[in-house]
Amino acid sequence: MKYCKVPDETVRRLPFYLRGLLLSLQQGRLCISSQELADLVGIRPWQVRKDFSYFGAFGTPGVGYDTEKLVREIKKILKLDVVQKVALVGVGNVGSAILSYPGFAMYGFDVVAAFDIDHSKIGRKVNNILIEDVSNLATLKHRKINLAILAVPADAAQQTADTLANAGIKGILKFSPCYITVPKKVKVISIDIATDLARLPYYIRAGRIND
Amino acid sequence: MKYCKVPDETVRRLPFYLRGLLLSLQQGRLCISSQELADLVGIRPWQVRKDFSYFGAFGTPGVGYDTEKLVREIKKILKLDVVQKVALVGVGNVGSAILSYPGFAMYGFDVVAAFDIDHSKIGRKVNNILIEDVSNLATLKHRKINLAILAVPADAAQQTADTLANAGIKGILKFSPCYITVPKKVKVISIDIATDLARLPYYIRAGRIND
Repeated sequence: MKYCKVPDETVRRLPFYLRGLLLSLQQGRLCISSQELADLVGIRPWQVRKDFSYFGAFGTPGVGYDTEKLVREIKKILKLDVVQKVALVGVGNVGSAILSYPGFAMYGFDVVAAFDIDHSKIGRKVNNILIEDVSNLATLKHRKINLAILAVPADAAQQTADTLANAGIKGILKFSPCYITVPKKVKVISIDIATDLARLPYYIRAGRIND
Repeated sequence: MKYCKVPDETVRRLPFYLRGLLLSLQQGRLCISSQELADLVGIRPWQVRKDFSYFGAFGTPGVGYDTEKLVREIKKILKLDVVQKVALVGVGNVGSAILSYPGFAMYGFDVVAAFDIDHSKIGRKVNNILIEDVSNLATLKHRKINLAILAVPADAAQQTADTLANAGIKGILKFSPCYITVPKKVKVISIDIATDLARLPYYIRAGRIND
């Protein structure tokens, strides 16, 4: 199947749908309604139907969506139907939390390499992953790793991103709190937990229930 | 001004607009176009205009939006026009990173208290914040703190959330990788970095430039 261009907002929701669908599958549910999916993701049912229409998935009225089929389709679109190897750079507080995070496997991610500049960390293992010298980053080119998580201090972020781009990394999940520039072929997604925290007071005033 | 109900997706984008506007103000820019704001947030200009229309902010054609006025309006909507005190529970890897995170002040957040169960941590200070015994959580009720960041292990999350709700906490930013139930008056926003990572392979295949 050839997919049309999917809007960024739809792409952002796809992992949340996927998580909801995988949990439903675990509970043995082979069908799910757009209302149930909407509740899981915190949006409206029409938005679910619109999102899925981009890749030709249409539910059956009164029955819902085929859970397994939707999982396959979403994984295919997100390119998560194959294991994606990930390298971590920076094993500080954030990096250590990432190496111990159990939530990546659900999406087919495998954190296989970790790098740091601190010699007291290099050579140690966290969650069975060896911490390598950051000067070895260039070896990523030969290790079939396309994705990197950047968790170095802000003042080292740009230089590390340059090295990652040169080593063939094509996608960077950035925790370092700063702007970086990368070649156009590299995609950067930035995490800023303050933007999530910043929504909380709104909902407190509004006195709304949880989504 | 009385605001109509703002859609969740718009609320989610407001902190990103706010960040872009504050950076623009730092650069001395008193006006900003919907195209420029759209570029900063990674969406389309029509979406920016639609989002702002919910609170009656309309740009001037050919000139754009009044940056300072928009900042004030967004802060008012998000209830960030006053300092919001925040308590952290769980000073492990994630919690330690949070206590050192410089990005909260921009939104008016002040992390003023931290709690842990580990006696080797209690009494120590991280970034000038004293780590208190988690058995003191009930004191939050008298400290005018409405928000909490939950960064405890999954098996302690529910019990801690219960204690927070009893202590009058109205909003929880949850890092613990598990589901929790809370009273309806408490709003929970969950952070799952895997859902952000899960978007990266899509953009790599599509060969798109950064937003």
